[in-house]
Amino acid sequence: MLKAKVVGKVWSTKKISGIPTGAFLEVEVEPAGTRLIAFDVLGSGIGELVLVATGSVASAWLEGVAPPIDALIIGSIDESSQ
Amino acid sequence: MLKAKVVGKVWSTKKISGIPTGAFLEVEVEPAGTRLIAFDVLGSGIGELVLVATGSVASAWLEGVAPPIDALIIGSIDESSQ
Amino acid sequence: MLKAKVVGKVWSTKKISGIPTGAFLEVEVEPAGTRLIAFDVLGSGIGELVLVATGSVASAWLEGVAPPIDALIIGSIDESSQ
Amino acid sequence: MLKAKVVGKVWSTKKISGIPTGAFLEVEVEPAGTRLIAFDVLGSGIGELVLVATGSVASAWLEGVAPPIDALIIGSIDESSQ
Amino acid sequence: MLKAKVVGKVWSTKKISGIPTGAFLEVEVEPAGTRLIAFDVLGSGIGELVLVATGSVASAWLEGVAPPIDALIIGSIDESSQ
Repeated sequence: MLKAKVVGKVWSTKKISGIPTGAFLEVEVEPAGTRLIAFDVLGSGIGELVLVATGSVASAWLEGVAPPIDALIIGSIDESSQ
Repeated sequence: MLKAKVVGKVWSTKKISGIPTGAFLEVEVEPAGTRLIAFDVLGSGIGELVLVATGSVASAWLEGVAPPIDALIIGSIDESSQ
Repeated sequence: MLKAKVVGKVWSTKKISGIPTGAFLEVEVEPAGTRLIAFDVLGSGIGELVLVATGSVASAWLEGVAPPIDALIIGSIDESSQ
Repeated sequence: MLKAKVVGKVWSTKKISGIPTGAFLEVEVEPAGTRLIAFDVLGSGIGELVLVATGSVASAWLEGVAPPIDALIIGSIDESSQ
Repeated sequence: MLKAKVVGKVWSTKKISGIPTGAFLEVEVEPAGTRLIAFDVLGSGIGELVLVATGSVASAWLEGVAPPIDALIIGSIDESSQ
């Protein structure tokens, strides 16, 4: 998984069928600084630190027939120790 | 998913069997600047900002017996907030 | 697989359903220095050198209906020869 | 998919079972310049510009019981527009 | 696939269940210079040039119930032409 901070939101009206209910959030991976768009069903907000799972496991967790989603916010991070 | 801009189109006459109907579009990932070829069924045009899903979820969404497609444009981006 | 050192732990209370019992550990990949969060069922500790498998094979090994886990610590490294 | 140029060929006599009939070609990804080995069933030649699909979709397209192939040349590029 | 040279071996006594019989070899990808740990059933030796398949295709080829292995040496390279 990736540790990432929610930095924005993306809206898409013209899209293919089969996208589940949820939001497309732009996240910035820490500490790498790279960005990707993750699907969110938790109602995550801007600035929130989250865990993102990528690849087919994101699609497999979502309901529906193989939704074409390759990144999913699986949790909000309470705290990290190092 | 990746946020990317459509920057070109690729034609292939000599290809393997099982490629569905659609277009191969070259996209530039934002903000990384890397490029890949994504399959498009939405009629996306040059300069359009799109969401691209990568990996086996792209193939799983398409009809047919496991088409060898690893990147799919799943939507056109209306707007981003940051 | 990746050779990585455990460098921290992450807690998440608000999370999606289907996450198995275990810990989310932050690991630093050697020698690249990149970081990711791996799921751990072995009780690995800070400073321990581990083997991490990534992608859908992590989810497939875990019990449950397709848990959205994309990185799993599969072993503790005793020794490396080079 | 990746746009890549065929730059070489690789031969392997000692190999695991289940590799289908075809060639292992070294390709250079454009414009990144990275290299990988892709499986080819189209008879692609040195210097040819091709489309490469990576990941499990390559294996899924090939006949046989899950051949351990993670990159497949799916077409020869006629032309690109930008 | 990746072209890589075997540069070391890794031993793991404390590991999860379901790891098949074989060796964990450290390989250095050519020409990128990055390193990963690949599973080997061919008896590959230090200095040997090999082909490595990554991702779920590695697990799918191995016997057992979805072993958590994401990189597999599929062949020894005899010769490359460029």
